Amino acid sequence: MKILMISADNFEDSELLVPYYRMLEEGHSEDIASLKKGKIKGKKGYEIEANRELKDIDPAKYDVLILPGGKAPAVIRKEQKALDIAKHFFDEEKPVAAICHGPQTLISAGLIKGRHATSYRSVAQEMKDAGVKYEDREVVVDGNLITSRQPSDIPAFMRELMKKVK
Amino acid sequence: MKILMISADNFEDSELLVPYYRMLEEGHSEDIASLKKGKIKGKKGYEIEANRELKDIDPAKYDVLILPGGKAPAVIRKEQKALDIAKHFFDEEKPVAAICHGPQTLISAGLIKGRHATSYRSVAQEMKDAGVKYEDREVVVDGNLITSRQPSDIPAFMRELMKKVK
Repeated sequence: MKILMISADNFEDSELLVPYYRMLEEGHSEDIASLKKGKIKGKKGYEIEANRELKDIDPAKYDVLILPGGKAPAVIRKEQKALDIAKHFFDEEKPVAAICHGPQTLISAGLIKGRHATSYRSVAQEMKDAGVKYEDREVVVDGNLITSRQPSDIPAFMRELMKKVK
Repeated sequence: MKILMISADNFEDSELLVPYYRMLEEGHSEDIASLKKGKIKGKKGYEIEANRELKDIDPAKYDVLILPGGKAPAVIRKEQKALDIAKHFFDEEKPVAAICHGPQTLISAGLIKGRHATSYRSVAQEMKDAGVKYEDREVVVDGNLITSRQPSDIPAFMRELMKKVK
C-alpha cells in the first residue's frame, strides 16, 4: 500500500515517527508531504525528510492518510491543498488516521461533522463545536476515520490502523 | 508474551519508544527495568516510567529482552544484574534485540564473541575487539540475537523481532 503523511515543523515526534516506522516495517511505501520539500523538525528535535511538496500530491495515488499531531496541524489546516487531499480520502472512504492535534485539519476541511472521533484534550471543545460526536477514549474508529488523543494512545491507534491497512 | 526492556536516563528516545509501543500494539505485556524505579528521560526529552528495579527482575519470567541505545547502555553495562539477566536469555536462547549502543551490555556480559551482529558505527571497533563478526547492515539476525545500528534501522529491526515474537 501507499501511505501519505502530512505534517510540518513542530510535529509531535513520536506521533509521526512511530507510524512512519511501523508502515515501513510492514513493507508499505510512504511519502511525507509538507509546505515544501526538505527536512521538517519535531518539537523534541527529531528531523525527517518531507520528500513531497503538498502542491504536487495526487491523493488518488495513496491508500491511507496519516495526520500526526503537535503544532504542525495549526499550519497544515490553513493549506487548501491539505484540505482537498483530506476530502478526497473521505469521498473515497479510504482510511484516515489522525492523532492529537491532527484532527484539526479535518475540522478545517469540514469533514467530521456528525462523526465519532477523539483528539488531544485541548482540541475537544473545537471538535464538539464542529459537530463531532466526541469520545474521550484511546482510539475511536468510525468508518474510514481513526482518531486518538495523545502519544500514550499510539499502541491502540496503530492496532486499529493496521486492521485497515492489512 | 512478556517483554523486558532494560534502559536508563539518556536512552535514544525512538529506540525505546517505538519497540515499546509496538509490543503494546501487539498485546504483549512489558516491563521497563532500570537502576531504580521511576521516570527515566531520553536524550530528546521523552520520559517513561521504569516500573521495575533491575535487582528485582527474575529473567525467567520474561520471553524477550530489548536493549535500546543512546547513552543508557554505558551505565547499564556496569550493572552485574543486567549482565546476569542477559546471560539468562542467551543460555535459554530466548530472543534478545539490541540496537545502537544496546549491544555494549552484551559485550560486557561476554555473550557475543563469535556471533554475527551489528551496532552503532562508533561501537563497531569495540564489537570487533570483543570477537563479534561485525556486519554493517540494517539488521543482523544470528540465532536468538537481533541487532541493528541506529534509529533509521528500526523498521527492519522490528520486522525481525516480530518474527521471533509471533
